[in-house]
Amino acid sequence: MQEGVLRVVPLGGVGEFGKNMIVLEYEDDIVIIDAGLMFPEGDMLGVDLIIPDVSYLLERQDRIRGLILTHGHEDHIGALPYLLPQLNMPIYATRLTRGLLEVKLRERHLLRQTDLHTVSERDVLHLGAFHVEFFHVCHSFPDALGLILRTPVGTVVHATDYKFDPHPVDGRPTDETKLARLGDEGVLLLLSDSTNIEESGYTPSEQEIGETFDRIFAEAPGRVIVATFASNLSRVQQLAEISRRHGRRIGIVGRSMVNNVHMAIALGYLDLQVDELLSVEEMNGLPARQVTIICTGSQGEPASALVRMSMGRHHQIQIRPGDTVILSATPIPGNEEMINRTIDNLFRQGANVYYHELSDVHVSGHGSREDYRKMITLTRPRFFVPIHGEYRHLVLHGRLAESLGIPRQNIFIIESGQVLELGPDWCRPAERVAEGYVLVDGLSISDVGQVVLRDRHHLARDGFVVAIVAIDEMTGEAIAPPEVLTRGFVYAQEEEDFIEMAKMQIRRALEDNPSQETLAVRIRRLLTELCYEETHRRPMILPVIFSV
Amino acid sequence: MQEGVLRVVPLGGVGEFGKNMIVLEYEDDIVIIDAGLMFPEGDMLGVDLIIPDVSYLLERQDRIRGLILTHGHEDHIGALPYLLPQLNMPIYATRLTRGLLEVKLRERHLLRQTDLHTVSERDVLHLGAFHVEFFHVCHSFPDALGLILRTPVGTVVHATDYKFDPHPVDGRPTDETKLARLGDEGVLLLLSDSTNIEESGYTPSEQEIGETFDRIFAEAPGRVIVATFASNLSRVQQLAEISRRHGRRIGIVGRSMVNNVHMAIALGYLDLQVDELLSVEEMNGLPARQVTIICTGSQGEPASALVRMSMGRHHQIQIRPGDTVILSATPIPGNEEMINRTIDNLFRQGANVYYHELSDVHVSGHGSREDYRKMITLTRPRFFVPIHGEYRHLVLHGRLAESLGIPRQNIFIIESGQVLELGPDWCRPAERVAEGYVLVDGLSISDVGQVVLRDRHHLARDGFVVAIVAIDEMTGEAIAPPEVLTRGFVYAQEEEDFIEMAKMQIRRALEDNPSQETLAVRIRRLLTELCYEETHRRPMILPVIFSV
Repeated sequence: MQEGVLRVVPLGGVGEFGKNMIVLEYEDDIVIIDAGLMFPEGDMLGVDLIIPDVSYLLERQDRIRGLILTHGHEDHIGALPYLLPQLNMPIYATRLTRGLLEVKLRERHLLRQTDLHTVSERDVLHLGAFHVEFFHVCHSFPDALGLILRTPVGTVVHATDYKFDPHPVDGRPTDETKLARLGDEGVLLLLSDSTNIEESGYTPSEQEIGETFDRIFAEAPGRVIVATFASNLSRVQQLAEISRRHGRRIGIVGRSMVNNVHMAIALGYLDLQVDELLSVEEMNGLPARQVTIICTGSQGEPASALVRMSMGRHHQIQIRPGDTVILSATPIPGNEEMINRTIDNLFRQGANVYYHELSDVHVSGHGSREDYRKMITLTRPRFFVPIHGEYRHLVLHGRLAESLGIPRQNIFIIESGQVLELGPDWCRPAERVAEGYVLVDGLSISDVGQVVLRDRHHLARDGFVVAIVAIDEMTGEAIAPPEVLTRGFVYAQEEEDFIEMAKMQIRRALEDNPSQETLAVRIRRLLTELCYEETHRRPMILPVIFSV
Repeated sequence: MQEGVLRVVPLGGVGEFGKNMIVLEYEDDIVIIDAGLMFPEGDMLGVDLIIPDVSYLLERQDRIRGLILTHGHEDHIGALPYLLPQLNMPIYATRLTRGLLEVKLRERHLLRQTDLHTVSERDVLHLGAFHVEFFHVCHSFPDALGLILRTPVGTVVHATDYKFDPHPVDGRPTDETKLARLGDEGVLLLLSDSTNIEESGYTPSEQEIGETFDRIFAEAPGRVIVATFASNLSRVQQLAEISRRHGRRIGIVGRSMVNNVHMAIALGYLDLQVDELLSVEEMNGLPARQVTIICTGSQGEPASALVRMSMGRHHQIQIRPGDTVILSATPIPGNEEMINRTIDNLFRQGANVYYHELSDVHVSGHGSREDYRKMITLTRPRFFVPIHGEYRHLVLHGRLAESLGIPRQNIFIIESGQVLELGPDWCRPAERVAEGYVLVDGLSISDVGQVVLRDRHHLARDGFVVAIVAIDEMTGEAIAPPEVLTRGFVYAQEEEDFIEMAKMQIRRALEDNPSQETLAVRIRRLLTELCYEETHRRPMILPVIFSV
């Protein structure tokens, strides 16, 4: 622990989307910002989700003064149910963020033991050496907060996810006045979202998609079904208002969305009453032009409401010819195939489908280049670290900052685990404290590592062949015919033929009673050759020598 | 076989991109158009590629008068090496398309036995009842041809892939005059590409990206490395010209691209000499501002030149800081993750990267809505069948045709295997002759079916557990301790613990000497429960009872 040094430790907050978590450390005090989860990439077979590697924090539990959540999206709060059992600490969040977190914690019986505190924009937190203030940011989540962390070496601004939309759904734009004042006072370090750095201009206003929705709702001959993220409560509010204008009422389908909407109504964040919501019977029974359905599934998630509907397998809602379906979301990279398949199936069911390639039915909650430029211009930080993006986004955001006059040597493109140290007038990279992340598969958060993933890849590509030989412990001779078991390799007639050939090779391997080790090596080699010759495939070959 | 009826049999030419193949049948005569392959979707584990199911043709070999290739892209010729061993027939292609096909056939020792014929735009083919004429189409392939098939019931226009770019690289736009004349004469049926129906306006001219390239080349401080499709010979020509203007010479990296470029030079399709091309030594040794490298890998293909370079693993070219890399292609849906990872790695290596999200470094070879509108307006067909697209694209293209005055009942949205029948003044759907496609994995084109794929999915998600018990044939008692083998399930310490627990369950299953069948059922149930309780995963459980 160095005296007078501020350490910034990103445990998942940079270098990749999603598992956002940044640790600030000053002498004996640690403050954590967000704890997000990421969904696995296509080649992380069987992995359910990814959370930050917090071993750095586990070793320093006693210094943690609190965790502050900037807003309630999955990529900012989703890791908490997995981390809290190991890492208890006070959590600070706005009412709505807290409400969403409570839903999750209750499901996992973690609510009672968790130390939750509600904060609002006007509060100041004193967490050890850190004095934390807040500023309102406009994002696709009502009640999101950026952070102003006053530290002994200077002020750190964590801008989280934001845009400068002058006409947001809730009428509350990002607090430019406070940011400008911060710029005048002097900002040591700005951490700023990079998600949409590839988009030029400002992110369009929510008002613009309101106009698109108005047109679609006016023309829709039957029900309108809108899929969006379960946590996009701003969109739900917007759709409720548009539906009212067009003489429609809304119904909610999909467990996570129902939970979130009820909670947000209860907390007064949605201008809606629970008894206004349509029941399933009403969604199916009312005249079609009076019905709007809001559901999950905008990313083509296999178990979601929309995907089940698209395949005619939803137990409550069947798509009818004349239904209008809107996918109000941008595909997350990697989800395109599943989304496209869902759209195709909805068309097959006779629906008319609007999606992002065709119409402006979604605007991002994240800013674009001009929003990012404005954040830098307002806060005029001495040092700049782009966060929330993949490597290319961080590089491009760094270049933007350079073009705005921040010297290149004051801009740091860092990846997860790379510590930065700051003093009142300097900043430099320090050691790396964590490599990567933790893969969650089922219950466990620790036992799917690279070896298991590599095996799954191998199995996924070509399947496996198990060869079982029982030998006499004394003589080393086979005491029964060999068995061969294969899955995921070849099928039906070919399988039978293959197994016969494999058994022949195993008998060859058994010639002149080799030792167990030699036998295993021989079987592996002969079967590998056989598989490749017959099929040009390379299944996993596993000899089992069984001595009796 | 019905008299006086024209049958259109799509064996892969509609409903999905890629494996384009359409069969026209009139009484005793069959003509085939194209034979494409498709790359597998993300959930077709281990599958290398997909080709049309040609069982319909195998039963009617003697009636096939020929196969006509519209151009030489993979999705139009790629299935031939797999189909020709079963289905020999005369093949008609332009010189360049033939050249590309010959490269493939030579590799597989199929060239000598194949009956190839060169055609040009001015030829007329007499294939049984079909008189075939051609019209030039502008596409990202020099020398692509649309087809005019004169049949006893009327004229069919197969527009293949096209756009109406007035300024193509080779100066030869799509032949509007011929199309307009066809419209005057009367067209019974138009088959028209739907790939980019989601794009509004006309596809931008090749000239526009020429301007972007000019700017990037002028600013590039070092080498320029451009990745594009190996078959995009128009782009190679364009880059050669731009390089000349900027005092650079081009080198080609990547086996398929080298082969294609050499062949195209030999046939006179590229305004280039082989000895103008840079050697590997020159690409690395000449002053960086004199070097352009054209390579494969624009889709992030794992074995491609660009991907190897991005990981520092290419044996000839290392990325250097100061290199400018351009990905001159649009991501094929499903490839986004791999492409993004490649871009991130190129940035990490210090390159400056231009890609489609940032700059106009690629224009599609396919038309957009206005191009498609123009095709319909020029040809004024009586019946319309959109081809080359996924289901949503076909629906949207059908709607475009309807908005241009083609009656809804004259527009047919059909999928692979769905036959259409036509007379001089009617068209109706007939039977369905083929379901889907053939998955190619390694050598075989037949033995990866749904069962193998389902198993691979299961293995990929949670791995497997094999439980082996040797029992005495007479007494039914275990004669050795059970063995448990697992892969892709849990790792290291957890694996040892699991195996011990599994063995305990197997011993439980053995209590009171059950029959072999009962024993297998018991083991499966107990291990399934154990796995789920311990991990919430469901690996494949395979009991092997071995009687000695």
